[in-house]
Amino acid sequence: MIWAATILTLYPEMFPGPLGQSLAGRAMAEGGWSLEAVNIRDFATDKHRSVDDTPAGGGPGMVLRVDVLARAVDAARERNPAAPVLAMSPRGAPLTQARVRELAAGPGVTLLCGRFEGFDERLFEGRGVEPVSIGDYILSGGETAALVLLDACVRLLPGVMGAPSSGEQESFESGLLEYPHYTRPPAWEGRTIPEVLRSGDHARIDAWRLAQAETDTRLRRPDLWERYDSVRVRSPSGARRKNKDEKA
Amino acid sequence: MIWAATILTLYPEMFPGPLGQSLAGRAMAEGGWSLEAVNIRDFATDKHRSVDDTPAGGGPGMVLRVDVLARAVDAARERNPAAPVLAMSPRGAPLTQARVRELAAGPGVTLLCGRFEGFDERLFEGRGVEPVSIGDYILSGGETAALVLLDACVRLLPGVMGAPSSGEQESFESGLLEYPHYTRPPAWEGRTIPEVLRSGDHARIDAWRLAQAETDTRLRRPDLWERYDSVRVRSPSGARRKNKDEKA
Repeated sequence: MIWAATILTLYPEMFPGPLGQSLAGRAMAEGGWSLEAVNIRDFATDKHRSVDDTPAGGGPGMVLRVDVLARAVDAARERNPAAPVLAMSPRGAPLTQARVRELAAGPGVTLLCGRFEGFDERLFEGRGVEPVSIGDYILSGGETAALVLLDACVRLLPGVMGAPSSGEQESFESGLLEYPHYTRPPAWEGRTIPEVLRSGDHARIDAWRLAQAETDTRLRRPDLWERYDSVRVRSPSGARRKNKDEKA
Repeated sequence: MIWAATILTLYPEMFPGPLGQSLAGRAMAEGGWSLEAVNIRDFATDKHRSVDDTPAGGGPGMVLRVDVLARAVDAARERNPAAPVLAMSPRGAPLTQARVRELAAGPGVTLLCGRFEGFDERLFEGRGVEPVSIGDYILSGGETAALVLLDACVRLLPGVMGAPSSGEQESFESGLLEYPHYTRPPAWEGRTIPEVLRSGDHARIDAWRLAQAETDTRLRRPDLWERYDSVRVRSPSGARRKNKDEKA
């Protein structure tokens, strides 16, 4: 069984889009994962093939009908019964790297892309659909959000990334932002690479990188820092996270 | 001057991708906004056209060279001098709807898409590039993140969205998640639309929707709730936020 993504959308022609290229596209071409985009409109039953209607209680825009969505979800579940069904929605739980890892380790995912004002709320309980949000901003539809979620998952599938070790040592995996990177040239417009990185002293380099990651997280992301710091206080032995050049 | 996006990427063929379709695509075709994807590799100067090199201090992967990136940014600034230059990076400030509104109100945006381990850190200060993150997960590159940021901006441009009022009444605009939506059929598999939404009493509907939005935000997003609640406590007169059916 390969990792299988099913996208329920009103714009199936948007897929695979950028995921048909680069590492994800190559992996798909080699059978490392599959994507099928299914048009929600195929599950409409009236002669106008309508998928939406006006909001109960009034207000602007249109709402996707629960009966049409439920049929689309049921069809996707028949294809891949074990895959969780997620709806891209700003009302959902924020996507995290931990959730991405879980999804990538499973059989695949079914993603429901909304348009207009969103989904009839009865769908979520009625079909066990989990709303998930990629961030605190509003998109024209769930399609670009679905591409992001798939990109995050697919890069973790076995054999997709060039350097398999990269995946485990980046921002968020340790609860910190990643440390800053530098490469040649050593001097550029008067700005030089920090001396420690040219020292060859791996212990010093590791310590510098951890300190940088901690400082950047504290200054840029007090929300992440608070969580990291509280874990560190509760469990001092876990404080020193593994760094890039350490062997597992 | 139309709103102009310049994308600096190693995969220009990923653009406009999904943004060439639906509302964003139609608006682009009608001259409502423009997108140009520029290959970072065009700014390499050696015979191998190399854009990356190994990380100073060791570690897996490759880092994008500051000299190549700076030339690409300089060229983009010549094309659109007033557009802010953002780099899609998990080390950046989280993208918010407020930032999206600012960007949409400006002349456009230049977006730098990373690959591999990321950008040489000297670029940010050296060229006044602002790192921005769409969420706490890792992508294979900045391209899908750039599509998300553009989607969020473009839908706010004048004339792009069908119902212009929709944009101002959704999740995050008020500091709350949006209230749940319902539409016909009124009964589905034994699940009915909440009675209040069928009452025709707009004051009751508004009150119910605000209460739902507050409850959902408190339960699902304690982080947003804390901010909303503290503003409400400081300024009781601002507590009652405008709801869908109220006139501005």
